[in-house]
Amino acid sequence: MPSISVKGRMMPESPIRKLVPFADLAKKRGVKVYHLNIGQPDIPTPEVALDAIRNFNGKVVEYSHSAGIPSYRIKLAEYYKKHNIHITADDIIIGAGASEAILFAFQSIMDPDDEVIIPEPFYANYNGFAINAGIRVKPIFSSIESGFALPPIADFEKSITSKTKAILVCNPNNPTGYLYSEEELETLRQLVLKYDLYLIADEVYREFCYDGHKHYSCMHLKGIENNVILIDSVSKRYSACGMRVGCMISKNKEVMSTALKFAQARLSPPSFGQIAAEAAIQTPDSYFEEVLQEYLARRNVVVESINKMDGAFCPTPKGAFYVVAKLPIDDSDRFCQWLLDSFEFEMQTVMLAPASGFYSTPGRGKDEVRISYVLNVNDLKQSMKVLKEALKVYPGRTI
Amino acid sequence: MPSISVKGRMMPESPIRKLVPFADLAKKRGVKVYHLNIGQPDIPTPEVALDAIRNFNGKVVEYSHSAGIPSYRIKLAEYYKKHNIHITADDIIIGAGASEAILFAFQSIMDPDDEVIIPEPFYANYNGFAINAGIRVKPIFSSIESGFALPPIADFEKSITSKTKAILVCNPNNPTGYLYSEEELETLRQLVLKYDLYLIADEVYREFCYDGHKHYSCMHLKGIENNVILIDSVSKRYSACGMRVGCMISKNKEVMSTALKFAQARLSPPSFGQIAAEAAIQTPDSYFEEVLQEYLARRNVVVESINKMDGAFCPTPKGAFYVVAKLPIDDSDRFCQWLLDSFEFEMQTVMLAPASGFYSTPGRGKDEVRISYVLNVNDLKQSMKVLKEALKVYPGRTI
Repeated sequence: MPSISVKGRMMPESPIRKLVPFADLAKKRGVKVYHLNIGQPDIPTPEVALDAIRNFNGKVVEYSHSAGIPSYRIKLAEYYKKHNIHITADDIIIGAGASEAILFAFQSIMDPDDEVIIPEPFYANYNGFAINAGIRVKPIFSSIESGFALPPIADFEKSITSKTKAILVCNPNNPTGYLYSEEELETLRQLVLKYDLYLIADEVYREFCYDGHKHYSCMHLKGIENNVILIDSVSKRYSACGMRVGCMISKNKEVMSTALKFAQARLSPPSFGQIAAEAAIQTPDSYFEEVLQEYLARRNVVVESINKMDGAFCPTPKGAFYVVAKLPIDDSDRFCQWLLDSFEFEMQTVMLAPASGFYSTPGRGKDEVRISYVLNVNDLKQSMKVLKEALKVYPGRTI
Repeated sequence: MPSISVKGRMMPESPIRKLVPFADLAKKRGVKVYHLNIGQPDIPTPEVALDAIRNFNGKVVEYSHSAGIPSYRIKLAEYYKKHNIHITADDIIIGAGASEAILFAFQSIMDPDDEVIIPEPFYANYNGFAINAGIRVKPIFSSIESGFALPPIADFEKSITSKTKAILVCNPNNPTGYLYSEEELETLRQLVLKYDLYLIADEVYREFCYDGHKHYSCMHLKGIENNVILIDSVSKRYSACGMRVGCMISKNKEVMSTALKFAQARLSPPSFGQIAAEAAIQTPDSYFEEVLQEYLARRNVVVESINKMDGAFCPTPKGAFYVVAKLPIDDSDRFCQWLLDSFEFEMQTVMLAPASGFYSTPGRGKDEVRISYVLNVNDLKQSMKVLKEALKVYPGRTI
């Protein structure tokens, strides 16, 4: 039998996916599983987007432009203008989700063995994209005690080598919910200027900022227009993960013309998704106001509940819909599996994401879990109760 | 300004795309351009597929399973059964078009600098996927005089090195329309067994076989189940290029579990496209019968017209909707540009694809063009008339 690739063998398996069979078994036993492990929101997709699909009156489902439907990109530029981000349709390449956009960015600016610095914990799929592109992730540590703030500049500088091509931040952050401040972005600006690096900012949670805090985009940074690559997606903004519509944005013409060649090789992004995403730009502000209220209430339930549990702690994140919580446990992988295969409280349990999967440095995150607050407030309250009970009886508890 | 990647600089620009600005200028001058350069059929997408989208009644456009919607894959296995291809839903991973499926296949079985042998001329985007995956294409020559039949086995063997991991064939072929026979597939079977290679078969034109010829699939080959990877797509079958739904299929469990990790990293294929593609499986046979009649009539117009032109020749392909024609010209890139920027006949011209872009060996295909017969018979007749007139006056004609 012919062999498979080294790259293929290196591709990580998500620690969440390893838990799925255990969740299925729990459900088979009749246990209700609260899914706090996923990034799939329960919020309805805006009707205006779904209507565009229901009213599709084309005769042929054609390829779109490789960079995306022109009218969509023009409207998208208008959307960004509202967020004080000034770009044109030509600065945008639509990808099949932010996933493809990140891959385009990695491949356009980095060669095999080049390095990208990412504060950890970070979105686990960045590892997969890095292996896919043949590049290396250099993690630098952000601590739960600091609320996962940007690590000190000295830590970045220690990690920079001749192979370093980029710094990647997710803002607001998955998995931590951390919202980077204008000052932190300014620090990154100086860093990329000093070392002539790219700054890739994954801003797919832009709309989800709480407590009156404003999102500060990488595109607001002055004087590094040729260094900045913005990654975006409609998945979270409009609760439309399945549309597979994201984009990469840059003022750097050379980067964009290079990325376009990768985009042309795969012909075009999904047409139906783009049609829906174009219509979604008309989503009324009231939609986001309601969604924000809902997520804020959920965040508060989770943060308050966790911080009341003995030996548990989580910061109060200002963005996205995740928290990383520190729990009094020996090993989060073991704990998350135990929740599914050995625990139940009133025939209920919770599925969490072990934080180990979000750290690239082995051994980190062993007493941390990521909680996605993508369930309604009542279900969240109930799942926090279940978690509290679980921590009382978990054999590997550390207090 | 930070540098872009070597890989990015290596990505080829399609010779067809270089012509697009010239076509736009011709249209601005009021010249009607017959597009014989594209792979986008004009045939309507089946209504049953479009209805499924129009009737979408979900509330949230969710991620699907990373390997594709389970019910879709189950129905897809039924579709293949009709074609005497016996697989299960687990042997299928849905990709964003055949494009993504090919990339998954390349990455799962090949490491940087590994080699894949492809008979040339071949679909130009294979080059892009190869550069993307960091692998090398080793072309072997198939001649227009043989009708683009499979090159002699000795030519394959001469090209096999320790780096060779796979042979890739497109069957029926883009750009040549050639349909490989059962005997030719058998030859490939013996070859991959002898050298322990993968056989990747891109069969997206399966439905388009003429003159009573039957398609023989790589999945019909006995005893090499672990070597075979089938690439497929709904783009051509249902004239639904914009759905971006394709797949890779293999009985090799290790290949599939590896490919699934690449699929998981990008989360899921497009949901709307999959919903439409699932419904499309119900497309009545009468649809294909009509489409086949139509394409057959078109093929005959093109083949007969070309072969009547002085110094021109094209084989009669048994599949797909392309022909590669030899013309009495000095340089097909120059000729195709000249057609757009310097020629018109009764305010009309034609846009063709220079065949040079389908050859990997420099200098080949200089007197050949690819003609896609994706226009109706009347427009095709008219464009053949225009081409004939053009050949009479082209300054670089060789007769």
